[in-house]
Amino acid sequence: MFNKLCIIGVGLIGGSIAKSARQKNLASTIVGFGRSEDIENLKHAKDLKIIDDYFIDIQQAVENTDCVIIATPVGSFETIFKQLKPYWSKKIIYSDAGSTKGSVIKAAEAIFGFVPTNFVPAHPIAGAEQSGANAAILDLYKNKRLIITPLKNTDKQALATIKAFWEDIGSYVSFMDIEHHDTVLAATSHLPHILAYALTDLLGRKDETMEIFKYAAGGFNDFTRIASSDPTMWLDICIANKGEIMPLIAELRYKLEEIETLLEDNKTQDLFETFSYAKNARQRFLEHLK
Amino acid sequence: MFNKLCIIGVGLIGGSIAKSARQKNLASTIVGFGRSEDIENLKHAKDLKIIDDYFIDIQQAVENTDCVIIATPVGSFETIFKQLKPYWSKKIIYSDAGSTKGSVIKAAEAIFGFVPTNFVPAHPIAGAEQSGANAAILDLYKNKRLIITPLKNTDKQALATIKAFWEDIGSYVSFMDIEHHDTVLAATSHLPHILAYALTDLLGRKDETMEIFKYAAGGFNDFTRIASSDPTMWLDICIANKGEIMPLIAELRYKLEEIETLLEDNKTQDLFETFSYAKNARQRFLEHLK
Repeated sequence: MFNKLCIIGVGLIGGSIAKSARQKNLASTIVGFGRSEDIENLKHAKDLKIIDDYFIDIQQAVENTDCVIIATPVGSFETIFKQLKPYWSKKIIYSDAGSTKGSVIKAAEAIFGFVPTNFVPAHPIAGAEQSGANAAILDLYKNKRLIITPLKNTDKQALATIKAFWEDIGSYVSFMDIEHHDTVLAATSHLPHILAYALTDLLGRKDETMEIFKYAAGGFNDFTRIASSDPTMWLDICIANKGEIMPLIAELRYKLEEIETLLEDNKTQDLFETFSYAKNARQRFLEHLK
Repeated sequence: MFNKLCIIGVGLIGGSIAKSARQKNLASTIVGFGRSEDIENLKHAKDLKIIDDYFIDIQQAVENTDCVIIATPVGSFETIFKQLKPYWSKKIIYSDAGSTKGSVIKAAEAIFGFVPTNFVPAHPIAGAEQSGANAAILDLYKNKRLIITPLKNTDKQALATIKAFWEDIGSYVSFMDIEHHDTVLAATSHLPHILAYALTDLLGRKDETMEIFKYAAGGFNDFTRIASSDPTMWLDICIANKGEIMPLIAELRYKLEEIETLLEDNKTQDLFETFSYAKNARQRFLEHLK
């Protein structure tokens, strides 16, 4: 599909994209770009044959490239667009893997004054709690959803190519408008992450004075898995999408207060209905997951 | 170890105890007791050879029994003790698998006026989100913790037998006082379950008007797994231990409000520290889990 693919940020996400692209023969050469402080990770990615070569000079990285995919934390996108701008080329298709799309579009507008037509905003919906090239997983995106949030001026050919790229990797591609994407993901991904961090912070501090983690079991393990996710990546996501996230945190606080009041008043029937509704709702979710 | 073991309540928990006891040859005969409305489940448990026989008459169920283990939702313990009382025997060792221990002790005191010395309160710390005999898992308690909360007057021989029973099943047995058990479990188990129910209820209602579950991924799946747990069992636990649970819900609401304020004020350093602290705390938990 591509002669040369450039991955900006070869961490869990960028590394997994590179691994999948290589396995599916979607690029003859795959190179990585990172900051000078990322050099050890980049070397490691090359040793692992995730990428063929790496650069900390953006001009060299994008030279003769057909496709550039930005896979860095969303807070860095303005800096990345600024670095890319002098070498921006109509011959290259640009895309990304950012978890928030409104912020990515704003970052492009801040640097270019508009969103370049050959930039295709995308978000593969899968992750893991580890980070770095070392954590890259070959099939991370296989049978997972990928959302593209095209703009009115997005180039049709670039869009078709990025769609085909992800379909070849094995993802189910959907199209969505930017605002809807950020609303949906705030609920299903960003809020749960904040909740996992909040609970683990609260209980971790208790564990310091009273041994509690020793007696925690599998339920707690699964519930808090996402609290092991990369703090930098999630800080960026939370700040980038705070307009959607903050009202959801408030709604959840009200829901918890409601449960607290039901407990206080021994409203067993209402509590039972809440728990049962949740159990049934999760069943609905599981049917989607299949 | 036992000639005849009687399991009161042959669901996920009671059924898993029976399966383990059978595999480890801890009882020659295992019988189940349930209410008349549980008859189909009991029949099914017998068909699956989880139990040898079942009764809905308590006198028959406990006849010539060496050990009775109560594995019903904790809200039913007063009723169970009341049914057991006329046939209570010094020749039998009684124990339970209830997730709250203060409420179990109170139920015994309400029926007997004291806690019989041959009742050994115990709590195996493992579970699954399915319920019923059909969901019973052979190795549910293997390499898992089991907490015994003995009272001052608990019979030493009965205590030693129940400890040996669980160790033979493969559990790691700890002793703890009742209040401490209920404080620790409120934090590591009861609060996470309430949170999972609260979040899934909130998002389930959103999903009714705006398709969001379709775009939820593995993190959401793990995070909400415990929201598929049996609502009756968890209603009982929440009511039984509400004195410990309610202040924790309040603490979590404050923590969420704090995060909301940090987001509003763009306090990125403080947010990063919260997320990083949580990630490190979970690492501490994972080391315990090994």
